[in-house]
Amino acid sequence: MPFDVTILGSSSATPTLTRRHSSQVLRFGDEKFLIDCGEGTQNRCMEYGINFQKISHIFISHLHGDHFLGLFGMINTMNLLSRKKPLTIYTTQGLKNLLDLHYSTCNLVLHFDVEVIEIIPDFQIVYESATIKVTAMPLEHRIPCIGWLFEEKRGERKLNYEQCKKLGIPFKAFASIKNGADFKTDNGTLFPNEELTFEPRETLRYAYITDTLVQPQLKKQISGVNLLYHEATFLHNLESRAHETFHSTGKEAAIFAAQAKVGRLIVGHFSSRYKDLEAHIEECRSQFPNSDVAIEGSVFPIK
Amino acid sequence: MPFDVTILGSSSATPTLTRRHSSQVLRFGDEKFLIDCGEGTQNRCMEYGINFQKISHIFISHLHGDHFLGLFGMINTMNLLSRKKPLTIYTTQGLKNLLDLHYSTCNLVLHFDVEVIEIIPDFQIVYESATIKVTAMPLEHRIPCIGWLFEEKRGERKLNYEQCKKLGIPFKAFASIKNGADFKTDNGTLFPNEELTFEPRETLRYAYITDTLVQPQLKKQISGVNLLYHEATFLHNLESRAHETFHSTGKEAAIFAAQAKVGRLIVGHFSSRYKDLEAHIEECRSQFPNSDVAIEGSVFPIK
Repeated sequence: MPFDVTILGSSSATPTLTRRHSSQVLRFGDEKFLIDCGEGTQNRCMEYGINFQKISHIFISHLHGDHFLGLFGMINTMNLLSRKKPLTIYTTQGLKNLLDLHYSTCNLVLHFDVEVIEIIPDFQIVYESATIKVTAMPLEHRIPCIGWLFEEKRGERKLNYEQCKKLGIPFKAFASIKNGADFKTDNGTLFPNEELTFEPRETLRYAYITDTLVQPQLKKQISGVNLLYHEATFLHNLESRAHETFHSTGKEAAIFAAQAKVGRLIVGHFSSRYKDLEAHIEECRSQFPNSDVAIEGSVFPIK
Repeated sequence: MPFDVTILGSSSATPTLTRRHSSQVLRFGDEKFLIDCGEGTQNRCMEYGINFQKISHIFISHLHGDHFLGLFGMINTMNLLSRKKPLTIYTTQGLKNLLDLHYSTCNLVLHFDVEVIEIIPDFQIVYESATIKVTAMPLEHRIPCIGWLFEEKRGERKLNYEQCKKLGIPFKAFASIKNGADFKTDNGTLFPNEELTFEPRETLRYAYITDTLVQPQLKKQISGVNLLYHEATFLHNLESRAHETFHSTGKEAAIFAAQAKVGRLIVGHFSSRYKDLEAHIEECRSQFPNSDVAIEGSVFPIK
């Protein structure tokens, strides 16, 4: 089952010729989630061959323009292209009023449902399906801001068919064993579930953290995630500028990734002052070797 | 003195891989005007090497998203890049509330003045400097919509120095003659101003008309403009679709251009159904030979 993230935008507030405002598409099986939606996200989707009509849920970190200004145009285009599928948007307080005023100003009548869920993040699960859950984590920026943790849900244990056969367990008991039950023979012998099944594989997890001062207290929450996207607006020689503006440096992001024992780190949300990203790669890898930069168009598997 | 228009976006509401939402930059001497500002206009400016900090006035035809959604991001970037120069935006009613709600939602404090002037178009002059004037013309769309007429102002008559010398007119009278005065000799002979001066050169004019049903009654107003940009969302075989949605066809735009005796026609605001624009060129030129299509990045001189 595919589980990967495509980078659509990696720039901080001032875009550049090659870098657009924050946006990513997270693909999980047949589901597509959009994470942040900077200006021009619909164009980036077209460039990268991503059908944005398939996006079911959008997670917006915060209401600074570089993270949500692409929403209005994308919703408008979805509507023009006869979308019927509902869309749910999770973000902080204020978006609903803004969308409503847009609709009324433009005299826009939507032919599909757009639900906006405004959240005060407190580690609550905001979305949950049979296979994935999404948790909202509080960040520390100039305005309320949310980090998103995407976690595959633990699958069922798999039946150890050979073992069951060897022990003579009847076929009709298989369904309850797969659901976690132990098995007791007619003569009272108990076979605990663990002896009859295999562990489900490890679940996969992805964390998206921008814009924020680095948050060491989140280490526990994101410990061991397979992939962490963390902002690194500045290099560490501009540490004080980063802190003044409630942003992080490459070094800070990488130390955090190492301490949280994540599988791989991608940094993004780069200031327009950086023409290339070699120094970011170097700074991050010196702290955490499995670091990369969020080049637009790149696809990072979560594995 | 340069007087030209650069096409930044030529798509109707659904953008395509190659065509963006409506926007143009009009250069008049040292002044830069932006006409419409679809999503991604700031990126297009960067691509085409246009410094949008030099834009002093923005003219928005109407408040459908494909004509103004780039404003928020552009104002935000102008602010981040320390703009001090004031900006004036002319449009229909509703933008001011929307901008104000954006600023407060994003907690955005602007360091330069943005004045929004909301207009009910009635052929009034909305902007005037020593050298140019801009008139708001009512169009007929699904919501209030404005056509913009940019007219160079008539220059001063030039002194016919040889003629004045021949007639023995004293040097001290030259200034008043240049300002339009006649000259009377001491013995009462009157030399009318036209005999002492040359006509100023013809003034140059540009008209921008989108989104609308074709408006034959505007012929008089735009008669003889050097360059007309007119929407041609559809080809004429979709005439009824065009009229249902309050748009024009290529044929209609070209007949209008011919009747108004304009110098040159550019059509734009193309539906995403048209992969290339050959049929638009053919349809327009069959009615008005000096027709072209608004290819993004093209610069059209007004001459």
